[in-house]
Amino acid sequence: MFREKIKVLDCTIRDGGLINNHEFDRRFVREVYKAISEAGVDYMEIGYRNSKNLFAPGQFGLWKFCDDDEIRKAIDGIKSNTKISIMVDVGRVELEDIKPKSESPVDMIRTAAYVKDIDKAIFMANDFHAKGYETTINIMAISLDQGPELDEALHQIEEESHVEVLYIVDSFGALYQEPVEYLVKKAKNILKTKEVGFHGHNHMQLAFSNTIEAIIHNANFLDGTVYGIGRAAGNCPLELLIGFLKNPKFDIRPILDLISKEFIPLRDKIEWGYIIPYAISGMMNVHPRAAMALRKSEKKENYREFFESLSDTGTD
Amino acid sequence: MFREKIKVLDCTIRDGGLINNHEFDRRFVREVYKAISEAGVDYMEIGYRNSKNLFAPGQFGLWKFCDDDEIRKAIDGIKSNTKISIMVDVGRVELEDIKPKSESPVDMIRTAAYVKDIDKAIFMANDFHAKGYETTINIMAISLDQGPELDEALHQIEEESHVEVLYIVDSFGALYQEPVEYLVKKAKNILKTKEVGFHGHNHMQLAFSNTIEAIIHNANFLDGTVYGIGRAAGNCPLELLIGFLKNPKFDIRPILDLISKEFIPLRDKIEWGYIIPYAISGMMNVHPRAAMALRKSEKKENYREFFESLSDTGTD
Repeated sequence: MFREKIKVLDCTIRDGGLINNHEFDRRFVREVYKAISEAGVDYMEIGYRNSKNLFAPGQFGLWKFCDDDEIRKAIDGIKSNTKISIMVDVGRVELEDIKPKSESPVDMIRTAAYVKDIDKAIFMANDFHAKGYETTINIMAISLDQGPELDEALHQIEEESHVEVLYIVDSFGALYQEPVEYLVKKAKNILKTKEVGFHGHNHMQLAFSNTIEAIIHNANFLDGTVYGIGRAAGNCPLELLIGFLKNPKFDIRPILDLISKEFIPLRDKIEWGYIIPYAISGMMNVHPRAAMALRKSEKKENYREFFESLSDTGTD
Repeated sequence: MFREKIKVLDCTIRDGGLINNHEFDRRFVREVYKAISEAGVDYMEIGYRNSKNLFAPGQFGLWKFCDDDEIRKAIDGIKSNTKISIMVDVGRVELEDIKPKSESPVDMIRTAAYVKDIDKAIFMANDFHAKGYETTINIMAISLDQGPELDEALHQIEEESHVEVLYIVDSFGALYQEPVEYLVKKAKNILKTKEVGFHGHNHMQLAFSNTIEAIIHNANFLDGTVYGIGRAAGNCPLELLIGFLKNPKFDIRPILDLISKEFIPLRDKIEWGYIIPYAISGMMNVHPRAAMALRKSEKKENYREFFESLSDTGTD
């Protein structure tokens, strides 16, 4: 028995890009797209659409900008029913860089925002909707914003936006199943006309179980990445999610091949996964940036000092 | 707010011994015992008590046998409130090798059994109880035995045994939160006079979340291992469990130090953790022995072939 409404979005290249400056080469992106397509995954998110006025193209990989032409080159000639998604951050995109859907290979645009920026996110997402795209708003760092401001943001999204999906994003990998249940139920309760999605982070090895918990409470849009790649500890491993879902349209085998051939070697070059400073960040409900800095320093395995630096509870 | 009844058992040396032939040296075991004691963990399981008639001592490390004298040497002089546990398997121990508690450094004996062997397990555990030990029965591979035979075994344990704790053991790492809820509630319902424990395996990165789920439904005895070491994908990482529990008696820092100093180097020598063939075993609800054999072969990264070998559903 499966729930037909469930849609899986692979954000391997997009979230993985946060740990390699978005510098996946075209060959690699095509291999990922091929496997994701063969696996029957519904969406593949290929990167960010950032303003070139804010970020100099020479200093980042292609997927920091996701020009329509670059996307076309990456997917050209590959048989696929997988839709293409891009992500935009509030304040980092020029709306005129988003052409009408009829002129673009992109199907969906996801707007990532903190609760405090929800008005801007709604404005942007409505612009993309008017241009013909499927749209979502992804509320980041939701573990910090579980109070009345979140309620207000959810009501605004329901009443003022045209998005199809509201995503709960556990940016800090700080949630476990009880808060996931609380948040998904709250969102389902307020957002009568929209779907709820979930994007987990794996700091405490809870991204997959939190995604299962979101499924149990009727979230229908689910993010995963191949071999769990993504910022810091990474995301919900796509292969586990596909293995769990019963929908016969999915085939795990192309993803297993992709891991064998591409991700085992890649993991020797760039680091993600279960790493103690990221686990500590999750326990502390803080952004992993301090842990990411630690991992680039000579103190990378000095966990006690890192733990104590985050847990100073003095009043000064 | 914490639940005072919760007891944490570290089985680093015992379950970790399954991947290195129980060959941890005395220095290493003392370092683990020191850190576990400083962290305030309630029990440390140090290995198995196996019959030397069945297993030749020269072919295994010390912790396959856990002679009382070896345990004494390992813990001698270390300040500790941590109790010592050993595990026995049905059919692999000589009852006369278990001296009365008053002559042994061991506090608790856990009898591991499949549902089919529950009569033998009760007989053994009652013998250990009569000798003065705390006792448990740990039902292994419970994901295969969720039907009426499990109910009968639980009733027998309640009515015929003197054990303090019945453990649910997800040997195959096949459970997620819904079956954990089902099994813990069932056990709590039948075992009116005993505590329920949970021992997870991490094949699908669910050992920690399943342990949280067991806590939510009032399991009070919880297993973990340092850095998640254990057979195949390993167990619930003790550091995550200690980080989650609110009991002020626990201190995570000695465990963080132990990981920095001992387990990061150890992980380069022996393999455990999130490894695709173990994840596949978990999805398929099978013993990881085929995956363990694969990892020792030249085909260790050939995931597709391994997946297909387990998923042949023909009628022949």
